[in-house]
Amino acid sequence: MLDYNVPGGKLNRGLSVVDSFKLLKEGKDLTEEEVFLSCALGWCIEWLQAYFLVLDDIMDNSVTRRGQPCWFRVPQVGMVAINDGILLRNHIHRILKKHFRGKPYYVDLVDLFNEVEMQTACGQMIDLITTFEGEKDLSKYSLPIHRRIVQYKTAYYSFYLPVACALLMAGEDLENHIDVKNVLIDMGIYFQVQDDYLDCFADPETLGKIGTDIEDFKCSWLVVKALERCSKEQTEILYENYGKPDPSNVAKVKDLYKELDLEGVFMEYESKSYEKLTGVIEAHQSKAIQAVLKSFLAKIYKRQK
Amino acid sequence: MLDYNVPGGKLNRGLSVVDSFKLLKEGKDLTEEEVFLSCALGWCIEWLQAYFLVLDDIMDNSVTRRGQPCWFRVPQVGMVAINDGILLRNHIHRILKKHFRGKPYYVDLVDLFNEVEMQTACGQMIDLITTFEGEKDLSKYSLPIHRRIVQYKTAYYSFYLPVACALLMAGEDLENHIDVKNVLIDMGIYFQVQDDYLDCFADPETLGKIGTDIEDFKCSWLVVKALERCSKEQTEILYENYGKPDPSNVAKVKDLYKELDLEGVFMEYESKSYEKLTGVIEAHQSKAIQAVLKSFLAKIYKRQK
Repeated sequence: MLDYNVPGGKLNRGLSVVDSFKLLKEGKDLTEEEVFLSCALGWCIEWLQAYFLVLDDIMDNSVTRRGQPCWFRVPQVGMVAINDGILLRNHIHRILKKHFRGKPYYVDLVDLFNEVEMQTACGQMIDLITTFEGEKDLSKYSLPIHRRIVQYKTAYYSFYLPVACALLMAGEDLENHIDVKNVLIDMGIYFQVQDDYLDCFADPETLGKIGTDIEDFKCSWLVVKALERCSKEQTEILYENYGKPDPSNVAKVKDLYKELDLEGVFMEYESKSYEKLTGVIEAHQSKAIQAVLKSFLAKIYKRQK
Repeated sequence: MLDYNVPGGKLNRGLSVVDSFKLLKEGKDLTEEEVFLSCALGWCIEWLQAYFLVLDDIMDNSVTRRGQPCWFRVPQVGMVAINDGILLRNHIHRILKKHFRGKPYYVDLVDLFNEVEMQTACGQMIDLITTFEGEKDLSKYSLPIHRRIVQYKTAYYSFYLPVACALLMAGEDLENHIDVKNVLIDMGIYFQVQDDYLDCFADPETLGKIGTDIEDFKCSWLVVKALERCSKEQTEILYENYGKPDPSNVAKVKDLYKELDLEGVFMEYESKSYEKLTGVIEAHQSKAIQAVLKSFLAKIYKRQK
């Protein structure tokens, strides 16, 4: 179960803990213990991710994940996958207790993982009730609701958590770094907008998967932007074709996206976000933290997959 | 979701925190804060229980719980119930953080809840893989495997956790109370044996539910004891009829249980367990802890429901 679900991802989140901690040490060599501990925290995030993915795939009724069948679809697994998700989650605290119990930042670390798990579960809740509650009704989708889902469901655990782990290891008090949290949340939202864009416009070969946001009636940044820009007639086309499995319906939505030049709208969003984030980062008083945030941004800016 | 799933049980586990803490204070009046905090911890255990029940009911494909449909069977809920379970769980740490963060025993409390959650998930795992993996094969059921399932799945969170919470509030170090843990685990196993017995032999009217352990191919104490006492012919009857939904199969198993005098075997187990537990409790050096353990035992001895 562990071998099937924990490895196999890109490990971006886990590796970011190590990278960030190195940058916070400003060129000083890491001790053997520091390397080990930052790797351990990185893996905790990867286990957290595995836990979310195993459970989310059941809730979303997904078919494949990382190029293999979703865990609950493996014969003999089925709904036992729920308990396996819980076991994945519980290993995080065993790792934390085993390796960090004596550290002065142990309590903060445990609180951090609990807080971020709660935020992610809240994001999943908002996503599920927005997408599935009642009739399929596009009028409930808007930029603020898109932002709220993304912030809670993705940004906290994918962007804030790795850096927060590195800050705690460096002896920092997270209360003093609310500004870092805010930049990382904004970066996480930018990342998810890219994700939404690539789901529709990227080459599936490069992306490694075939996007299904349109079929799945997802509250994607694209549909929100389309709704903002549609004429009355175009709105009708969108309402009639969004969230239907038939390829002809999907094609009509994609045509409309092209008509509305959402590719251009995205390019503009991308460069404006980059500018804004860079501005905020360069205004930060600490060069080390600037380096951490810039390294994060460089990893995702103009990504193709 | 909270109103549907958190209240509605007997609250035994939650109330035990308050009762135990009172006994540990040896007659001294509780301050208002102590009443509040012991109630808060009691509710944390009830939320933990709600979380387990919501998820277990999905995995066991159950129909009703506490006299109403299982949460995932409520229209419009479905698999979203998985995330609701996660939200229930995450509230525990919010309650702990909000009310106990400043207490000297905060870290121990958080570690305790994490440890007990892990043990319970492991118990559920052993139960699921024993009951469902491969063919229905009674030969894998035995007293040690029954004990292991019960110890992990039920005893830690239902018996040890409430007393451990009270001990932490009273300023005790749990490392010094391994003996208390062991007695409570044994009490929890005794409690579950009663549960298995009542599932088959209690009046459904008094019990408040209709037992289905035989139909569900459960690793019940009764089937384990039956296997120990069966002749070759009786073993065949058991193998042929256990774990089948038809009432005629169930009746044959129940007849066999009566033939083997499992009622008498249970009575003897019950009085021997009581004697043994009382002996261990009375050997404990602390009168206050004796009182806590005796009060627990009195609550369950010879229970009819």
